[in-house]
Amino acid sequence: MARAEAYEPTERTTPTRARDRAAYDHDTVHAILDAGYVCHLGFVRDGSPVVLPTLYGRVGDRLYLHGSTGSRPLRMAGAAPDPGLEVCVTVTHVDGLVLAKSAFHHSINYRCVVVHGTAHQVTDAEEKTTALDALVDHVLPGRAADSRPGNAKELAATSVIRLDLREASAKIRTGGPNDEPEDLALPYWSGVLPVAPAYGAPIPSEDLAPGTPEPAYLSAR
Amino acid sequence: MARAEAYEPTERTTPTRARDRAAYDHDTVHAILDAGYVCHLGFVRDGSPVVLPTLYGRVGDRLYLHGSTGSRPLRMAGAAPDPGLEVCVTVTHVDGLVLAKSAFHHSINYRCVVVHGTAHQVTDAEEKTTALDALVDHVLPGRAADSRPGNAKELAATSVIRLDLREASAKIRTGGPNDEPEDLALPYWSGVLPVAPAYGAPIPSEDLAPGTPEPAYLSAR
Repeated sequence: MARAEAYEPTERTTPTRARDRAAYDHDTVHAILDAGYVCHLGFVRDGSPVVLPTLYGRVGDRLYLHGSTGSRPLRMAGAAPDPGLEVCVTVTHVDGLVLAKSAFHHSINYRCVVVHGTAHQVTDAEEKTTALDALVDHVLPGRAADSRPGNAKELAATSVIRLDLREASAKIRTGGPNDEPEDLALPYWSGVLPVAPAYGAPIPSEDLAPGTPEPAYLSAR
Repeated sequence: MARAEAYEPTERTTPTRARDRAAYDHDTVHAILDAGYVCHLGFVRDGSPVVLPTLYGRVGDRLYLHGSTGSRPLRMAGAAPDPGLEVCVTVTHVDGLVLAKSAFHHSINYRCVVVHGTAHQVTDAEEKTTALDALVDHVLPGRAADSRPGNAKELAATSVIRLDLREASAKIRTGGPNDEPEDLALPYWSGVLPVAPAYGAPIPSEDLAPGTPEPAYLSAR
């Protein structure tokens, strides 16, 4: 059987603890990235760390990021052949609260991807359009084709940075608590409380034309 | 009326865009922190940014963090009077997908807190116990008192770092899309799709003693 394609582990994508929870194969890493749309973008500014929530989308082995809380990192990234901005992009999904009989063994079930690399601004208009479509479709699959595409002025006013997926790893915890054998008789409840994002009833805009149908992809979330 | 206590804005807690979304008052910042239990911890290692999902709890004006993916940052922080580890801690809640008629105006409703500062390891046993209780109670309020407390060996094996809340800011987006007037007649649906974490039915441990009652605080989540 052919071995699945995988990202090469590096010193910084090898966890110091719980290495059995780490994964590097493309399928696992991509599935975790594709399940989300908000990442935490880390970079260094004046020697200090900065972490900002940022919208992202994936196209093949490329991540595209859109600044949501200020354009500092996007300006800092510059366009090739500028050296770019060294970043760490982390995507985390919480799947459950793991309640052990001992406080010590409490944990969280989660899926997480950490990507290290150098990001650059996207300047090519076609690539930027592809990236923005991916960003919108990450938030809500099918939405990009059901909205007005960006015009030249909007594209110019939008900053997108690209980070190639080369140094990437996943970390996953599943299952119940790992209690000490001598604690099993204690009277505390133990187990997992599952958690997942839940989408509520869509709230139409006040200025929505009466009779505008609710698209089917809304209920797909 | 007395002015509400607030964190002093600094250059790096003042967003470059959408400043009207920023808030610094303690009530707003604390409420956002208290609504979560997983933060994204950013620090600089060998000159490069690292962002790791990390459990946290708040006690007054102190954040306590527990390494979930490796103890590197906790070792790097050291104990006072070591210089500590410069960190950026970000907590983000996604509240809704904002669907505009134009791709350009798509957005996310969210509440976010960013804290900058220097973290140190907690070495005092009593403070560590308080911190770990806060961590467990952030995940599930009421749980710390309903589990076996950590013993001396477990406390020694647990690393907690403390970050004082001094340089902290919140950023919040609410409401519907801000479409261009000329787009309002377009046939696309626009509005907000609300999202919030939803907790499922508790899954008892396989080794849970039959008849162990399910605690009331489980359904409080």
